[in-house]
Amino acid sequence: MSESHTTTPQFLKVTTPLQMVSGATLPEYELIYETYGELNANASNAILVCHALSGDHHVAGIDKDGKPGWWDGYIGPGKPIDTDHFFVVCSNNLGGCRGSTGPTSINPETGKIYGPDFPMVTCKDWVNSQNELRKYLGVDQWAALLGGSMGGMQVLQWAIDYPDKLRHALVIAAAPKLSAQNIAFNEVARQAIMSDPEFYDGRYIENGTTPKQGLALARMLGHLTYLSDDMMGSKFGRELREDKLQYNYGVEFQVESYLRYQGKKFATKQNFDANTYLLMTKALDYFDPALEFDHNLSKTLSKATAQFLVVSFTSDWRFSPERSHEIVKALLDNDADVSYAEIESQHGHDAFLLPNDHYEGVFRAYVQRIKAEIDDINGAQK
Amino acid sequence: MSESHTTTPQFLKVTTPLQMVSGATLPEYELIYETYGELNANASNAILVCHALSGDHHVAGIDKDGKPGWWDGYIGPGKPIDTDHFFVVCSNNLGGCRGSTGPTSINPETGKIYGPDFPMVTCKDWVNSQNELRKYLGVDQWAALLGGSMGGMQVLQWAIDYPDKLRHALVIAAAPKLSAQNIAFNEVARQAIMSDPEFYDGRYIENGTTPKQGLALARMLGHLTYLSDDMMGSKFGRELREDKLQYNYGVEFQVESYLRYQGKKFATKQNFDANTYLLMTKALDYFDPALEFDHNLSKTLSKATAQFLVVSFTSDWRFSPERSHEIVKALLDNDADVSYAEIESQHGHDAFLLPNDHYEGVFRAYVQRIKAEIDDINGAQK
Repeated sequence: MSESHTTTPQFLKVTTPLQMVSGATLPEYELIYETYGELNANASNAILVCHALSGDHHVAGIDKDGKPGWWDGYIGPGKPIDTDHFFVVCSNNLGGCRGSTGPTSINPETGKIYGPDFPMVTCKDWVNSQNELRKYLGVDQWAALLGGSMGGMQVLQWAIDYPDKLRHALVIAAAPKLSAQNIAFNEVARQAIMSDPEFYDGRYIENGTTPKQGLALARMLGHLTYLSDDMMGSKFGRELREDKLQYNYGVEFQVESYLRYQGKKFATKQNFDANTYLLMTKALDYFDPALEFDHNLSKTLSKATAQFLVVSFTSDWRFSPERSHEIVKALLDNDADVSYAEIESQHGHDAFLLPNDHYEGVFRAYVQRIKAEIDDINGAQK
Repeated sequence: MSESHTTTPQFLKVTTPLQMVSGATLPEYELIYETYGELNANASNAILVCHALSGDHHVAGIDKDGKPGWWDGYIGPGKPIDTDHFFVVCSNNLGGCRGSTGPTSINPETGKIYGPDFPMVTCKDWVNSQNELRKYLGVDQWAALLGGSMGGMQVLQWAIDYPDKLRHALVIAAAPKLSAQNIAFNEVARQAIMSDPEFYDGRYIENGTTPKQGLALARMLGHLTYLSDDMMGSKFGRELREDKLQYNYGVEFQVESYLRYQGKKFATKQNFDANTYLLMTKALDYFDPALEFDHNLSKTLSKATAQFLVVSFTSDWRFSPERSHEIVKALLDNDADVSYAEIESQHGHDAFLLPNDHYEGVFRAYVQRIKAEIDDINGAQK
């Protein structure tokens, strides 16, 4: 019942120009996406999943290379988001490097790779492009929108910008905006990439190379903020790679080995695009929906009509439970329908991607509620 | 009364070879140091200050360039460590780049700059070299040893290795060993330096350059861990550099400007040596005195006879109060004389260097106690 199906990505080409927040216009673009399950007759069972910084459209099932989706444990037949009942959609964000138009795509106006000329994207731009996908799929209103971390921010933006286009907003391990410390970590990561001599001002592909070292450093730093101190302690402690200390700059402690491996894998095997990494971190920095509403988050969310599930994890220090409290408080100021769960976990920010009984229980129960609501809608329409 | 005096550094050349923990031998070395106040007749009023990662011997007074010492607010005539009563000593650590023998010194065996060939130093090696300075100065027993962060670790090591050579140990914002997360931050900083193409496997001076970008990245990352999230929030928030968002990779937020400035200053104006930075971070990683005592810190400290003052700061997440609790607990297991103060501060790890009334009060009171004890000793000897 819980086996994963092989998935094939699809493409949507949008020829309506996208007016972007930065002032730039994208004349046309493609979104790569996957779907799981079947859209029902009245299109009331569609769920859009929004991905995080290094995620992509392959959220569930098994791709052609045999790789399971990044949230396959939660999405599929018999799983918390049961694709026997739901039609689940996930697209790669604009500016990404996994198939949607981004810095590695050809700029139709020049016939050359965009590279650093790809316009700065924001959360609002992503939501606008995902709205084109919604229309194309024939979904008037998403049953739910769902995302963790940067994905949760897109869900918030949807609830603010398109209040009547979703019934439920599941905002996981997110924040209403980045703190100065969050921005600072992103900035160090960007400087690591941009100061790599192989970066060539973003034109590394034309120069036949990639800024692997800088990207690896950025990823190492990312991992550091995804894991909690406790979790690193229990996973690695001060365990040595060799039997005894070597007193050199090789790997002494297991944690060094782990980080070097993760950095290298991201920059080489996974071949993540450096310009995409820069764009995603900037979009995170820029995310601050309350900016247009006198810095007042309650006012910002006053037009949101969705029902909310907000989830945070105790050991997450990148987007701590306090940041989720800000969202919950602003929703309650508006008498919104909001459920909140603070999940005990030692896995830090990474917890939102990992198995956890309490998390899964909360999730399954909430999705049951969405399903019951759809059954009601369908019953009433019969 | 609290004006600062001009100080002139002195040098001690040690020709007794230093057997190092790594197995290497340093045939001879020099320590640069400064002293403040006068050593009294029975040499009972000497205090050694141990510096942190990027610190040096210039802890108090004004140097020839007009620069005040890094702890000048706490050391001087009429200050908490009153140099009208105490003889204060501070030396640059072995492996440093401010005058003591280190990677930028000439290796007497080759006639060339040590560079990456300088042997790996540990806290124990520093303490052994500082012990040569103690003997040279004619101090049988330090009235007190004092240090913050990496300096506090040297104080702990002194109390373990030379229990009868100090009466008081002031261990500030330190930890009994680094956590996996601490090591991970150091490792990312090292990788940033070592992957800079200007690093040349540590032989950058011979190649007429320095790994400025890598060193700047390492320093940016360091600053990130020295400041608390709250403090960065109240200092910078999401304040913009310009009036409005630019949507480019220039500086958007003030915190980016601050970090870039700090990184650049460290690598250029302050001209910190990259090999020294690597050595210091490794010495931090290796610090784990309990390793030789079955990982039992209580057992490790069982021979320590000094009286202790342990100080931590509430918002310090690099070496949090919990890490100081470990030290205090191990001392109490041995019925040691220990005072502990947890200082409310939003300045993170940096707090140990900054003015703070509670901190200064605790400090002044404890130093008064040391002074009263010296007065007793001197009275008894009269």
